[in-house]
Amino acid sequence: MTDLLGCRLPVVQAPMAGSQDSALALAVCAAGGLGSLPAATLGLDALRAELERLRAQAVGPYNVNFFCHRPPVADAAREAAWHQALAPFYAEAGLPLPTAPAVAARTPFSAEAAELLEAFRPPVVSFHFGLPEPALLARVKAWGAKVLSSATTVAEARWLEAQGVDAVIAQGLEAGGHRGIFLGDDLTTQLGTFALLPQVVRAVRVPVIAAGGIADAAGVSAAQALGAAGVQVGTAYLLCPEAQTNPLHRQALMSGAAHHTALTNVFTGRPARGIVNRAMRELGQGAVGMSPLAPAFPLATSAMAPLRAAAERAGRGDFTPLWAGQSAPACRPMPAAELTRELALGWRG
Amino acid sequence: MTDLLGCRLPVVQAPMAGSQDSALALAVCAAGGLGSLPAATLGLDALRAELERLRAQAVGPYNVNFFCHRPPVADAAREAAWHQALAPFYAEAGLPLPTAPAVAARTPFSAEAAELLEAFRPPVVSFHFGLPEPALLARVKAWGAKVLSSATTVAEARWLEAQGVDAVIAQGLEAGGHRGIFLGDDLTTQLGTFALLPQVVRAVRVPVIAAGGIADAAGVSAAQALGAAGVQVGTAYLLCPEAQTNPLHRQALMSGAAHHTALTNVFTGRPARGIVNRAMRELGQGAVGMSPLAPAFPLATSAMAPLRAAAERAGRGDFTPLWAGQSAPACRPMPAAELTRELALGWRG
Repeated sequence: MTDLLGCRLPVVQAPMAGSQDSALALAVCAAGGLGSLPAATLGLDALRAELERLRAQAVGPYNVNFFCHRPPVADAAREAAWHQALAPFYAEAGLPLPTAPAVAARTPFSAEAAELLEAFRPPVVSFHFGLPEPALLARVKAWGAKVLSSATTVAEARWLEAQGVDAVIAQGLEAGGHRGIFLGDDLTTQLGTFALLPQVVRAVRVPVIAAGGIADAAGVSAAQALGAAGVQVGTAYLLCPEAQTNPLHRQALMSGAAHHTALTNVFTGRPARGIVNRAMRELGQGAVGMSPLAPAFPLATSAMAPLRAAAERAGRGDFTPLWAGQSAPACRPMPAAELTRELALGWRG
Repeated sequence: MTDLLGCRLPVVQAPMAGSQDSALALAVCAAGGLGSLPAATLGLDALRAELERLRAQAVGPYNVNFFCHRPPVADAAREAAWHQALAPFYAEAGLPLPTAPAVAARTPFSAEAAELLEAFRPPVVSFHFGLPEPALLARVKAWGAKVLSSATTVAEARWLEAQGVDAVIAQGLEAGGHRGIFLGDDLTTQLGTFALLPQVVRAVRVPVIAAGGIADAAGVSAAQALGAAGVQVGTAYLLCPEAQTNPLHRQALMSGAAHHTALTNVFTGRPARGIVNRAMRELGQGAVGMSPLAPAFPLATSAMAPLRAAAERAGRGDFTPLWAGQSAPACRPMPAAELTRELALGWRG
């Protein structure tokens, strides 16, 4: 992986939209890892500013990450049902229910983004939820960027390899944040890292980066034993001072609550792993965190935003997505450079 | 683990009720691992015969495994609802719906079993679904048996240690067969091996045996890196000639179907991981494999048995529990001694 991507250490800092900007990425790069900038929630101007910062300051290669979901189709009936599910919480907070249609707070990779990237030629570009359409992907590869994307099943890994990715990120079920699942929506297909990683390694020829449950040097050693060419770590970086993790989120990660995470679609419309909180408990139907009423990604977010803001003003993370992987209890606050070096100690060179 | 249990290799063959008898256990013991006899489905006479065989032929220590669930309370309304859910399948098979109440085909560890064991003093006794009541546990410990039980959460591991187990089996979400979960029933609490194992290792002082997703030497190395004192392997042993694995089960394990397992309660009433088949697909509600209608463990089995028998006569595993872990695709048929030695090659001594 280090040969392929050009970084000194086989450690990728997972892009975490909403919890970090280029500051975290730069600190990881400076320590020899691959820092990542999450671009999914950035407008073009903000993205340009971040790319300028990375170009000016990054030591070694860096990664820019995009979502590539299909834009949602507006569905007034579904949105109305969602508002009805949220109505008791709006009433409790003394807020009026939203009347405007939901807006998409995250946009998929676009021709405009590709054009902007072409001016900066970032050395690595990673995608989540599959890949952009072939013409857009070809533009990224044209300047020599190495392309990564996440697979949550063997079939997804094979699909990504066939589309020309340079490395596959095998995202085990333990991973925090959005699951990269894109060839289906049956969550019973999702494998733990122990099972997924070696199966993906056997299935593809490109290097495989392990993600999910890795939070320390021992986890890195275990991933290497299972055939990984490197690791991607997210949750542990949320506690670094260079991350912009919401204080309530940071507090939850350091508390006993971090022992219980679950997959939830109530914050965005797609399944993602977070620390179980009130929204996940009370909006989940059948299982904690999963609601059949949540609008298509990312439209669920719109109507949750006022509830989140009101709760946060009162010092509560009841409606905040507290993204975390299952190894959150193993994470401790430390500077990103120190964390990157500690993780790399688990790698036998 | 080898010091504690007295076996030469740090490999426990997982007890697999319904798929093996003492023949598999003896082959594993002869190779230096810890062979296990599953006793949950054996009557006292059958158990005595198996214990005689183990005492006479076992090379080194062996393990006898019991379930210790609470016996179910009969619930006619629930059973009627279950029969109604199964009615279309009975009609299709041309079978009359059962009229007699369900019988429990698996019994928890009892005073009678303890009395029988006392005559044989097996060196290791393992439990699933927690532990028997303290007086019964004390009888087992009285002859010096080492006691093991499975934890699926950190809280369960701490509970088992407090009750005096000699080692904890950390059962990750990848594991096949019944989940050992006993302090609750929320399946979102269940962790992948990558996350569970190191958290349990940090939480208890007794040795921790890793289970879930381990099917080859690389998996053993990874478990060791995460702090395991040994491993327990199930699915891979199902393909050994010494196992009594149903031919349809064996065939499914060797097929592409093994790539998709899920947790299901439709075969017994408790969640267990198996290869997705028709019963899991068509009786599952919300998620593949899970039905709110399934009677309490193990009563769900009764009404499934005629459907299973009819389908198996026609050469179909549609209603057969095809227990398998998420690493099933990595398993290949080989003699149990060879598998035991191959697994142990992953351990750095």
